[in-house]
Order: sequence, then structure tokens, then C-alpha cells
Amino acid sequence: MKKITINLFPFGKKIHIKSGSNLLEALRGANIPIASYCGGQGICGKCKVRILENGRTSKITEEEERLIPEKELKSGHRLSCKVSLFKDASIFVPLESLQQETIKGKETLEVKLPLFPAVKCYKLSLPLPSLDDMRSDLERVNDGLKFFHGVAVNSIDPLCMSYASKFLREKGWNVNVYVWMDKEIIGFKPKDNDEMYGLAIDIGTTTIGMYMVDLKQGEVVTSGSILNPQVKFGEDVITRLNYILKKGKKGLRELNKVLIDGLNGLIRKLTSESNVSRDEILDVVAVGNTVMHHTFLNIYPLSLGSSPFVPHLANSFYIKARELGLEVAKTAYVHTLPIEAGFVGADNVAVILSLLPHLVNGPYLIVDIGTNGEIVFGNINRLLSASCATGPAFEGANIKHGMRAHLGAIEKVKIDKKTLDVTYKVIGNMKPRGICGSGIIDAISELFTSGLVDSSGRFIENKSCERLKKNGDSYEFVLAWSNETATKKEITITQRDIRSVQLAKAAIYAGSKILINRYGDKKPETIYLAGSFGSHINIKNAYILGMFPFSGLNNIISKGNLAGIGACLALADRKKREEAEEFAKKVKYVELSATSEFQKEFLDALYIPHRCDSSEELEKILKEDIS
Amino acid sequence: MKKITINLFPFGKKIHIKSGSNLLEALRGANIPIASYCGGQGICGKCKVRILENGRTSKITEEEERLIPEKELKSGHRLSCKVSLFKDASIFVPLESLQQETIKGKETLEVKLPLFPAVKCYKLSLPLPSLDDMRSDLERVNDGLKFFHGVAVNSIDPLCMSYASKFLREKGWNVNVYVWMDKEIIGFKPKDNDEMYGLAIDIGTTTIGMYMVDLKQGEVVTSGSILNPQVKFGEDVITRLNYILKKGKKGLRELNKVLIDGLNGLIRKLTSESNVSRDEILDVVAVGNTVMHHTFLNIYPLSLGSSPFVPHLANSFYIKARELGLEVAKTAYVHTLPIEAGFVGADNVAVILSLLPHLVNGPYLIVDIGTNGEIVFGNINRLLSASCATGPAFEGANIKHGMRAHLGAIEKVKIDKKTLDVTYKVIGNMKPRGICGSGIIDAISELFTSGLVDSSGRFIENKSCERLKKNGDSYEFVLAWSNETATKKEITITQRDIRSVQLAKAAIYAGSKILINRYGDKKPETIYLAGSFGSHINIKNAYILGMFPFSGLNNIISKGNLAGIGACLALADRKKREEAEEFAKKVKYVELSATSEFQKEFLDALYIPHRCDSSEELEKILKEDIS
Repeated sequence: MKKITINLFPFGKKIHIKSGSNLLEALRGANIPIASYCGGQGICGKCKVRILENGRTSKITEEEERLIPEKELKSGHRLSCKVSLFKDASIFVPLESLQQETIKGKETLEVKLPLFPAVKCYKLSLPLPSLDDMRSDLERVNDGLKFFHGVAVNSIDPLCMSYASKFLREKGWNVNVYVWMDKEIIGFKPKDNDEMYGLAIDIGTTTIGMYMVDLKQGEVVTSGSILNPQVKFGEDVITRLNYILKKGKKGLRELNKVLIDGLNGLIRKLTSESNVSRDEILDVVAVGNTVMHHTFLNIYPLSLGSSPFVPHLANSFYIKARELGLEVAKTAYVHTLPIEAGFVGADNVAVILSLLPHLVNGPYLIVDIGTNGEIVFGNINRLLSASCATGPAFEGANIKHGMRAHLGAIEKVKIDKKTLDVTYKVIGNMKPRGICGSGIIDAISELFTSGLVDSSGRFIENKSCERLKKNGDSYEFVLAWSNETATKKEITITQRDIRSVQLAKAAIYAGSKILINRYGDKKPETIYLAGSFGSHINIKNAYILGMFPFSGLNNIISKGNLAGIGACLALADRKKREEAEEFAKKVKYVELSATSEFQKEFLDALYIPHRCDSSEELEKILKEDIS
Repeated sequence: MKKITINLFPFGKKIHIKSGSNLLEALRGANIPIASYCGGQGICGKCKVRILENGRTSKITEEEERLIPEKELKSGHRLSCKVSLFKDASIFVPLESLQQETIKGKETLEVKLPLFPAVKCYKLSLPLPSLDDMRSDLERVNDGLKFFHGVAVNSIDPLCMSYASKFLREKGWNVNVYVWMDKEIIGFKPKDNDEMYGLAIDIGTTTIGMYMVDLKQGEVVTSGSILNPQVKFGEDVITRLNYILKKGKKGLRELNKVLIDGLNGLIRKLTSESNVSRDEILDVVAVGNTVMHHTFLNIYPLSLGSSPFVPHLANSFYIKARELGLEVAKTAYVHTLPIEAGFVGADNVAVILSLLPHLVNGPYLIVDIGTNGEIVFGNINRLLSASCATGPAFEGANIKHGMRAHLGAIEKVKIDKKTLDVTYKVIGNMKPRGICGSGIIDAISELFTSGLVDSSGRFIENKSCERLKKNGDSYEFVLAWSNETATKKEITITQRDIRSVQLAKAAIYAGSKILINRYGDKKPETIYLAGSFGSHINIKNAYILGMFPFSGLNNIISKGNLAGIGACLALADRKKREEAEEFAKKVKYVELSATSEFQKEFLDALYIPHRCDSSEELEKILKEDIS
């Protein structure tokens, strides 16, 4: 096979690939973190590169013609997922086409956690073996645990056993013994060391959050987050699922490996920051949606690939960290919380777990908007759940100038109702490069309240406004002029962007509505927003758009990363794991696509604001807003 | 570091080693299976080689002067464990200095085993997932096991879970499910495949026996044995123990690795012979003495290294085969039987397990002579056990012309009482190369009954016999003249050889005697001999030597490899494992070295035959024998 050489700019890197290789795969192989929201299907257009010296390439595809302006095509711009190279070439990867590392959100917790950890540390001072007392080492230890602490332990991790005979003798039989679930010995330490840490991991489709918990003190000592490295295989769970099912076992191995590697990188970062040794991390709780959960546990997700979309494993699970390749103590267990249904995963269980003490009366609506949306309705005695395909619009995908909530993203937008002039706030106070989810919600809500967009979501064409411009067949609204931006190009909101947001918000609304109907048509007492998206949006603007049904503005409360909090709770307190297992079985999952009313509710919910639901309060808010 | 080149004859192999390297280690590194009974301590003299072209070597040591005749020293013979080389050299390794691969013993079992295996195969035909039945895959399987078979399973091996979603769907939810202990799912197979095999492994210090059991039929389908590859680190357990404790973790890794590699080689051989796939081996039971057991489970045996010699782990144990690196089904468990005491191991438990139905009245004496000797006295209600250091004389070590029971070994000896002429039988009907354990017992017993050796074990010097020759200070008896042998050298029994056998047999006798005393001075109703040694010796000759106390000749029964049979029983029937766990705790271990009477009994037992115990029957046998 012929090899060709590719010069990569601006990296100053040379790679050698087989002639005819797909460029996206070649770039990934060279560890260039190229963005690809659609997983290489030629849909998102985010993986655009410019071929500088014209090596011989494959023909321009239909997808490229649709997504790349003619002028750019002529100057060598191509979608890396759709182009193959047959000759040496030089390639320029623009900043916009790279995955962004800096991520906002998933903040540290400052809570005191209730402590009843799965691992306990017991002090032992044991009599030495003698001719009158020839018990085996481990009988001696087990008898000691029983005698001094009343714990009947009957097993030991084989790795823990390997060199214990030496350790026990060196320490004169005065040691600390770490016991998991009062069942299994998983560690010996000197008697002056009873440190013990755990990790709570929230594996989001986009962002992975990790909390290191001191299991002696019940405090989060440090935390961190990374972009889920699986993003390179697709922005949303469906794309990743399809990637795996297309590639088979190799696909699962790839997605599992990048995830575990990413987690290990984050573990190394947190342990070195906090000066905790890997061996002191003796417990782990992980949550995530079903696809994250399955790829984390190395479960081939075929059951999720077609209707009726059931999980393969729904119960909570214990597995040795070393079986997963997770770089904590080799003898530690990892616990995954249970799953409710095919697309309502362990992360949602963690959300409910964290809110459980608040769910006494109600009913309550819990909305968790990540890359996928999950909604729960009810109270402690009865809970309904559903999954709604919001699409990635709120994450900046499927939006012309959309981007993640990182440096250079417009995060807040205000339109003067008289002058129709725009003010905006950019993350990092710099020139904008695009717009993120909270900015998009602001922009569309403001376009509506400014009379530039009607209730059906269409731009009002006869409105006289220099920012409202025709582009081809449809209109777009200029948020930032080209001279204001970092890219020297205008940042706009297009008709198509508005449609994407309408589809997303209608999915949430309609899903919520159906759960409410099923429950018995009671209005929610409180709406809890979970997830970092919920904590960054302007709730009033989301309300105006018609994202949530039947609720006064003051009853909508954003609670932050509840999935992470729930994972921390289950880590610190093993009773919470039982609680989670119990209620996960009780939550009644409603498959929205199987309901007859979904279509109708969804179409109704597309309007801005929601038509059937316009309350007096909303009228008042709108009036205030305009005045 | 300077490198030198060594030419190895008769292998025609060249090796490159560091100047100054120890030759034994260099030969081992080159995979030359050099014999070393003492583990490189310069005691056994078995690793002798001849340095042909005189490379510069380290000085001749005291050990070499003692063990190598002057003439040989002059012609370049050296102990490879004691010599280092500093210049290129050519070396000849004689046949006698190589480990022998062909092993006699550990024969196949032809018994029908009672079946209640730890792994069961359940047939399932499950309803397909639908919108009305959205249980997870594994809930569906568990519900099916409960509904159709009444088994409440609550866990699954993570590896078994990985691709089950695909398998279940491909097979239309008609599958066989393998469940371990009615607790954990460890395999899925197509519904027409319910094959299931297990391995019983008897890890002897010298020989490893392996039995492949069909767990559907309760039959041994094939079996095999190898020389325990740990032999290269020392012939007996004490030498290997010292090797590990000297080398630390590296030593344990080495001994564990060669053992597991050896077992895997044997597994490959048995599976290919019987056309069974590795994945069909779903259960394993392993037994062995405490040092074998600990190195098998990768337990650092420090607790066995000094008084009071306790095991680190005495209870029975379950461990995943993959954690040990054993090449059976990845999800299979390995069960090790419990241990009684520091030097009465799981092999002895297996021996007792196999005899248990016979131990109703009694009392009985069970003697298991391997490289180490274990004795048990009592009946089902009360059992005493002890370990006696027989030394490796019965295995052919510490005997001038001793060798293992393999091709070329004299295995039977007869001396004509009148002519004092010798007839012998050689394994393989070939020219003899040495003498093995059963031959040595015959020879010494015959020397005694022929009046050539007195009751104290000394050659009777004034006896006129051309075969009785003085060699240096002491006598030796020629069994085979140089023209009869394969080595062209005489095969003799030396005074020192007789002493070694006396020490060994006295240890067994004295140990048995002390157990009998402790029990309440009852004579054994039956003596059971376990182990392949027991099945190859001439029992009458052993009786004449005074190996067993207080028993008529007809009450001594050789039962073959009872440790292997016990392991097979525990493999086929999981209730046997519980039984073993129970009685292992009840067996009272007697530490012989801690008893005041051992020294006296031992000294008394050195005589041929045993003095205090000479019965009328013995007198009669001796008379018959001489006449």
C-alpha cells in the first residue's frame, strides 16, 4: 500500500498515512482533536479543513456542496469526514474545527455528605502466631475483626492477599484493615494511616464530572471535568450508538477505551492536585445515561439500538475497578447506580436520589437537559419518567454559529425593544466566536419579545431592521457584525436555528405535558432544573419560549449538577444505593413515541410562547419585558 | 558489562551472557532444563557440567571439592550452580544433569463421579422485548431462571455481559445459561450446546496431575501429568520456599509464572487431545501442599518460612481463573480446597475427602508419601494429622545413583539369598541409568534380608560378596555392573544411600507412632497408602524396612493418587467442598517438632526392621523371605 505524507498546520506536524485514507480518521489517528458532531456522517459540517497544497483528493461530495459555500470549496475547504487523499498534501485545520477543551460548568460541591461508606477501616492489634495458636494469618485477621468489631468477614481480594503475610509481620500485627460492605477485605495499611477516598463520576454525553470525596470527613476535596473524549465519535448518544453498532466489537472497544483513558487522565489530575495516592481511592460510584453506562461497563449496546429500546443491564452493579482498567486502588469496587429505562439512565436516578428529600408532596417536575433530555414527574410515592430527544441545539450543535459554552461564546443576549440594537456578553470578555445554548435561548426569546419573530417562530419579514437580512431563501438576524467578531465573520441567528430550538423546547414541553396527563393532570408544584445547562440559562427567557408547562416563574428552581450530587451521596452513604435500587424499580417509564398524544402535544408546543398555556403571569411578564 | 559467548553441547546452541554470570542461571535463562535438586545451594551435585574449552572461571569451591571426584575436577567438571565464567567457553551438559520429562504415575481414573456440580446449565426460552415488556435483557434472563427453574440469580460476570445483548437476539432468546452456584451467570451458549467440563488439578511438588471431567456425565474424559516446572528452583518445598523468601516478590512471581505456564501447557494438551474448547471448561478445583497452594494463588509464603509455620490462607477459596491467568473459560472460577496446617495442605484434605466414606470405624492410618510426607490418624469423628520431613530420598534425590521413576530407572530389585546375585527390572526394559524410589526400597530391604546389611543399616563388612566393595572410607553394593548400564558406570547403593532411606522411613514411622499415641494408643485397623509412590513400592519390602507401625501386611492397602481423586470428587460435587471445609477445620494438626517424644521415636525407628514392633508376622515373613 502506498504511503503519503501530510503536513498539518498550524501544528507543524507531519503524518504518514495510506494513500486513499479518510482524512478524519487519519487526523484522529494523529491525535488531532478534530470536532465532529455527527460522527463523520457529513451532517454537522464541523470538521471542515483547508487543503493548501493540492494533493490529489476524492471528488467533492453532495454533503460538501451543501455544507461548504462555493467560494470556500474553490479555495480548498473540504469536510475531513468526506475526503480521501491520494498524494502528499498540506492541510490547515482552523481553530473552529477543533474540539474545545475549556468547559464551563460541573462546579465543586460544598456540602457535608452523610457518611455510611461501603468501605470501612478497622484497627486491629492481634496476638502473634505461636505453637499454641497456629491459626492461619487470615483466620487470625477475621477472628480479630469479629472479636473487636463484630464484623463477620469471609472473603479477601486475591491481590490484597498476595503480600499480606509480609506486611502483617513487618507491622507486628498492628494494622488497619479496609473492609468492603463488611464482607471482603480490600486493603491493609499501617495503623497510623486510615485515610480513605472515593470518586463520584458523572459521565455526561458531553462533559464528564469527577468528585473526589474524603470518606473519613464526608467532604468533596477536589473535583474536575473534561470533555467526554467519546465526542470524537459523535456528539450525541444516537450517533455513538450507531457508530458502535456499525463497527461491532471494535467500535465498543474504541468508545470504552477513550472513555476509560479520559477518566484515568482526570483521576491522575485530581490525585496529583490533592496529593492523594491512587491506592487511597477505595471506592467509586459512577452514573451516566444508558449509553454512557453501557460503554463504561463494556456492554455492547445492541438492546438500545432498536425499539423497544431496553437497557441490557438495568440493576445497579458492582465491578472491580481493575476489571474496568480504572486507575484507583486495584482492589476497589466500582458501583454503578441502576437504570430506569433505555434512555433514562443512572444519571437520572442520581438526580432523583439527590432530590428525594424534597419530593414529599408535589407533584414535582424534574427537567434534566443535557445532550439528551430526561424528565420526571411525581413525588416520592409515584414517579413517572420519560426521555425526550431535544437534539443538541442547546449545546450549540445544529446551530449555524453555535458552539459550546467556552471562551468566545456569546452567553447572554439583549435586544433593545425600540432601537432593536443588540448587546451581548461573551464568556471570557473577548471578541465572540459563536453562540452557546444560553445565548441562543436569550436571542430567540428577545427576537420574539422585540416583535422580530412571530409566535410560529418565523422572522417577520416586513420588519424594518438592518440586522434582519435575507440570505438565499430565508432570513437571518445579525447578532454581531463581522468587525466585532474574532472570526471576522458575522454571527447570526438563522431561521433554521430558530426551528432547531423550537423542536428542542417543544420536545421538553410535550414530554412534560404527557407525564402530567398520565399522572392525573395535576400542575407541578415546583419545577427543578438539573444539569449545568439549567444553571446557566436565563429561566425567564426559557419560560417565555415555552419550555416548561403550567408553572409560575418563581416555582422554577435551578439546582445545578444533581447527577453529580446524587453520585456523591451514593458514594458517601451506601444506604443511598439501596434506596436508588428500590425507587429505580418503581419509577414508571413512559415511552413517548408509543403514546398517541405525543404528536399533537408536540405540534402545539412548537409555538412561542406555548399557546394553550399562556397564563396571566406570562402576559404580565411579556408586557414588562416589552415596556 | 562485558558479554561472553558460551557454546552448549550436545545442544549445538550458542548463548551470550554477561561476563561473571552464574552458569546455572545462565543455562536456565537459555531454557536448558538443568537438574537442581537443592535449588543451587551446592548440596545435591545434580547440576554437574563439563567445561570443555577452558574459559576463565571462578575458583573451585569447597562444595565442588566435596561433590566432584578429583579426576573429574581435573577434566573440567564443575557444579553449574557454583561456577561463574569470565571468558568465552564451550560446555558439555551430560544427560544425567538434565531434568527428566517422562513421568510414571498419576494414572487416569475410571470412576463414575457423583454429580452436583457448582456450574449448572439451564435452558431458557424467553419472550421478546416489546413496548409492553421493556424489562432489561438481564432482568428478562433472571426472571426466566426464576420462573422456569426456581433459581434466584443476582449477578453476572462482567465479561459474560459484554456481548450477551447480541447473542440473545441472534438466538431469538432461546439459549442455555450457565450459572455458578445458583448465584452468578458465567456463560451463554446456543440451546443445542450444553457441554460442560471441569478440571481437577493436583499440584504435587514433583508431579502435576490434571483430570478433565465431563460435568454432564460425571466421567474423567482425559488426564495428563507433567513435571512441576518449579523443580528448577529446587526439588523440595523447603528449597523453593527459601528461594522465594530470598528473592522476595520477584521470586514469588517466578515460581507462580512457571507453574501457571506449565498448567496452561497441560490444559492445551488435554483440550486438544479431547477436542474440548477452552471455553467449555467452566470449573476448576485445585489441590496441593501449602507451598504449592500459596504459589498457585500468588500468596507470598512468608508465614511458612519460620516457626510456627502457619499458612497465610487456610480456608477454601474461590478466584476467577482469569485472575490466575489460567487458560480455561474466562468467566470460570477456580476453587482451592482448604488447608489443615502449615505443612498439611489441600492435597491432604483431598486425600481424606476421597477416603471419608471408608473412615467410619477404624482408627485408620493414612500415609501420603510425596516429596513431603503427610500422615493422618483416626476416623470420621476425630482425625489427627502431621507432616514429616521424609526428604526426597524416595524420589531418587540424595541417592548416589538415584533418579526419578522414568525410563531407565531400576524399579524392582531382587537379591538371591544364596548366591547374593542381583536381578532387577528397569522401566522401559532398557539398560539402567539409575535407581528410583521403589527400587531403592527393594534394594535395601533385600540387602537386609540377605544379611548384607545389619539392623542398624550398616554393611556387614566381613560378608564375602564381590558386589560389596570399599569406596574410600565406606562400602557400597553394586546393583549393576558397568557393562550392564547405559552410562557405562556401575550403579551402586552406598552406605550414605541407606542412611538417607533410614532417615526417611524413620520420619514416617515416628510421625505415625506419635499420632497413634496422641489418639490413645490404638492400633490402626487399616493403613491406606496414598500417592503414586505408594502404588509403586513393594509393600512387603517397605514393611520389612519398618516404614509403618503396628499393622499386619494384609491391612496395608495402596489406593493410588487419592489427592487427584479427592479433587475430582470436589469438582463434580459441590457438597464435597463444604464437607472438606468442615472436616479441615476439625482435623487436629500435631506439630511433630514440638513434641517431646519425637526424638526418641525417631531414633528407635531408624532400625531395620523397627525394633519395638517386630511382630510374629514379621518374623514369619522374614523367614519366608530368606528361605
